[in-house]
Amino acid sequence: MSVAKELEVANAEYAASFNNGDLQLPPKRKVAIVACMDARLDPARALGLEEGDAHVIRNAGGRAADALRSIVISQQLLGTREIVIVHHTDCGMLTFTDEVIRGKIRSDLGQDADHIAFLPFGDLKQSVLDDIKVLRASPLVLDVPITGFLYEVETGKVVRVEENL
Amino acid sequence: MSVAKELEVANAEYAASFNNGDLQLPPKRKVAIVACMDARLDPARALGLEEGDAHVIRNAGGRAADALRSIVISQQLLGTREIVIVHHTDCGMLTFTDEVIRGKIRSDLGQDADHIAFLPFGDLKQSVLDDIKVLRASPLVLDVPITGFLYEVETGKVVRVEENL
Repeated sequence: MSVAKELEVANAEYAASFNNGDLQLPPKRKVAIVACMDARLDPARALGLEEGDAHVIRNAGGRAADALRSIVISQQLLGTREIVIVHHTDCGMLTFTDEVIRGKIRSDLGQDADHIAFLPFGDLKQSVLDDIKVLRASPLVLDVPITGFLYEVETGKVVRVEENL
Repeated sequence: MSVAKELEVANAEYAASFNNGDLQLPPKRKVAIVACMDARLDPARALGLEEGDAHVIRNAGGRAADALRSIVISQQLLGTREIVIVHHTDCGMLTFTDEVIRGKIRSDLGQDADHIAFLPFGDLKQSVLDDIKVLRASPLVLDVPITGFLYEVETGKVVRVEENL
């Protein structure tokens, strides 16, 4: 059975007890979360989000630069007024460089990926601070509260990354 | 209290009963989900995902073009071999055009966003088919099973979008 089929089966159970059909499009808590796609991180469970609460934007690393289109839509059209960034320990983005993944793509797929910035990082805390800076510096992002967290995949805890302003 | 502070409080409860500290980095079910950031959609609850199961990539609309960097990392470095796309009814991406949001940014922020493709769409089912096509056409994406779903925010159900191959 494909995973997609398994997901359909699991969804039937979810839908059977579903009672959130009247939720509105704009996020109730007016927050956009930018988090890593990592399988071990479940932003809703880990942060107490219910359906309808928050935009959840996720990509490899939880990188702000790659979330900009979504953040602008979230703020301009759907009224979010706070941003929370969540990176995490043991992140895959710590394990490679642009040169490594481009080389792998060249040798395995015979393709050139030199035009893609894969946005890996070498320091976890700094990656959060860098992403806060990216958002604060963008003229397309509103001046809203931005908080950075590191999620510990070993403990399930989030730790706030403090900026030195 | 900022939402970030509320999330920290909720996380303390999650961490207190956390017992997933030994999960590995590569997703157990070898699948990458590409879903919309919409607040009403919780991919984990709606599709029966546990921590460790799947990469979850989310952006405005659940657009494949905007997920490409993450999908390549997911496949090349972390071994996923199936892709599931999830768009949904009542999506915000149905409510605007590039011209509309660029005009709003020009008038509200005094900024030019003409360089950003915001990737809105006019037809929900077609948006899923288009995104499957984008992935199948990309030489950087492996030839893996790709399934498209529409999530109904009114019922909690997913409906498979069939391709006419």
